Amino acid sequence: MTGYYQIEGRHLVAVDCIIFGYDIRDKDLKLLLVKRNMDPGRGEWSLPGGFVKEGEGVFEAACRVLNQLTGLQNVYMEQSFAYGDVNRDPGGRVISITYFALIKYLDIDPVKQKTTGAQWRSIKELPILVFDHRKMVDRALRQLREKVKIKPVGFELLPEKFTLVHLQDLYEAIYQRKVDRRNFRKKIQSMNLLEKLEEKEKETSKRGAFYYRFLPANYEEFTRQGFYFNLDVS
Amino acid sequence: MTGYYQIEGRHLVAVDCIIFGYDIRDKDLKLLLVKRNMDPGRGEWSLPGGFVKEGEGVFEAACRVLNQLTGLQNVYMEQSFAYGDVNRDPGGRVISITYFALIKYLDIDPVKQKTTGAQWRSIKELPILVFDHRKMVDRALRQLREKVKIKPVGFELLPEKFTLVHLQDLYEAIYQRKVDRRNFRKKIQSMNLLEKLEEKEKETSKRGAFYYRFLPANYEEFTRQGFYFNLDVS
Repeated sequence: MTGYYQIEGRHLVAVDCIIFGYDIRDKDLKLLLVKRNMDPGRGEWSLPGGFVKEGEGVFEAACRVLNQLTGLQNVYMEQSFAYGDVNRDPGGRVISITYFALIKYLDIDPVKQKTTGAQWRSIKELPILVFDHRKMVDRALRQLREKVKIKPVGFELLPEKFTLVHLQDLYEAIYQRKVDRRNFRKKIQSMNLLEKLEEKEKETSKRGAFYYRFLPANYEEFTRQGFYFNLDVS
Repeated sequence: MTGYYQIEGRHLVAVDCIIFGYDIRDKDLKLLLVKRNMDPGRGEWSLPGGFVKEGEGVFEAACRVLNQLTGLQNVYMEQSFAYGDVNRDPGGRVISITYFALIKYLDIDPVKQKTTGAQWRSIKELPILVFDHRKMVDRALRQLREKVKIKPVGFELLPEKFTLVHLQDLYEAIYQRKVDRRNFRKKIQSMNLLEKLEEKEKETSKRGAFYYRFLPANYEEFTRQGFYFNLDVS
C-alpha cells in the first residue's frame, strides 16, 4: 500500500453475481441463488456474492465467488452495474458491483452445490430476494436480452451440440415470448456460424432434428471482416 | 455506521467523469479535461474525478464532481463502467466508477472553468491521459455511439433549437464518419419527435434552414405506446 492518498472515506466493496443457466428440458432460464449466511438478512434468498479483498481485483473477486459456488472458471462473465447508494444494504455502507455469468446448466459441481445449498430458480418465479438484489437481476436480464441480439453469447448457455429448436427455445426463454420460427431460422442460418452435424436428436420427434454446433472461429474471422452478429427477432 | 460487517478490506473508491460537449461551430465532439492536481501524475491531463466520501452515494459523487467543474446539475449522466484492477492507479488501490455526461457546450460556468483550468479537447486529438483514463474514454465513446442509435440522448448535446444539418453534423461527429443525408432525414422525420419552428437559421446558407426543437413529451408518449427510437444510420 503506497501512501499517496491520505483519504478518510474507505468503503466496503462487494461483488454480486447473477448466474444464468438454461435448463434445456424445461425450456427455462434459471438463476443460481443461495440462502444468505450472514446478518442482516440471514436465511433470505440472495445472489451469490462476497466482499472484494485487499489486493484482489474486482473481476477476480467475482470469479472467485462463481468458482467457489460452481467449481467453474473461465466462463462468460460481464460487468452489469455498480450499485452505490448509501443505504442499499441495511448492514452497512457497501458498494456492490454486479456481474452476470452465462454457464452451462449441467456443468456445475454437484458436491459444491450440495455444500453451498445453491439452487437453480426459474426467472419466471423467483423468490423474494434480499436488499436490492431483485433490481440487480432485472437489470442483468435486460442487458442479457439486448446482448443476445448482437453477440453470439447465447451459445454459452447451450450444450456443445444443440438443435435449431433448442436454440429458438433458448431465445424464447430469455425474451419470455414466442419468436417467429421462419424468421429466426433464416437469420441464424444466413450468418454461417453453425456447423450441421451428422447426428440427429431423436428424443423430441420421431423424424429427429439435426444437431448443430457453434463455430467461434467463423465468428471471429467474419467479425474481423466487418460482420455484425444480428439475431434481433422482435 | 452499523457494525454488521467486520471486514478487513476497505477500499478507496473514486468516480471519474467523461463529460461530452458538442461544439456546433467546429462540428466537433469534445471532452472536458483537467490537469491533475495531485501526486502521482500531477500536471498530467486527466478526466475530472474525485473520491467517494463517507455517506455519499456514488452517483452523487459524480454529480458533485460535475457540478464543481461546470456549475451544472441535473444533466444527462449515465454509469459507464467500474474499473477494479488492483494496479490501475500507481498511487494506491483505487476502484474507479466512471460516468459519462452529455452537456450543452456553452452552458458551463466560465468562472468555474477559469478556476479549475478545465479545457474542452476534441475527441479527434486528445492529449495523453493519466493512468487508464484513455481506456475509460474509449469505452464511454463506444457506449455513446450505441446509445444515440436507440435513445434520443443526442439532443442533450445540442442547443434548444437546431437545424437538421446541425443534428446530422452531431451524429457524424459522434461516429467520426459521414452519414447518408437522405436516410438520416427520413428516419428522424418519420419518428415525429421534432417540431419545426417558424424561424430560420441563416448563417450557414443564404436560403436558410428551419430550426427544429426536440419534443420530449412526444417521445415519452410514443414510448408508452411501444415505440422504439431508432436512428441507426450505419
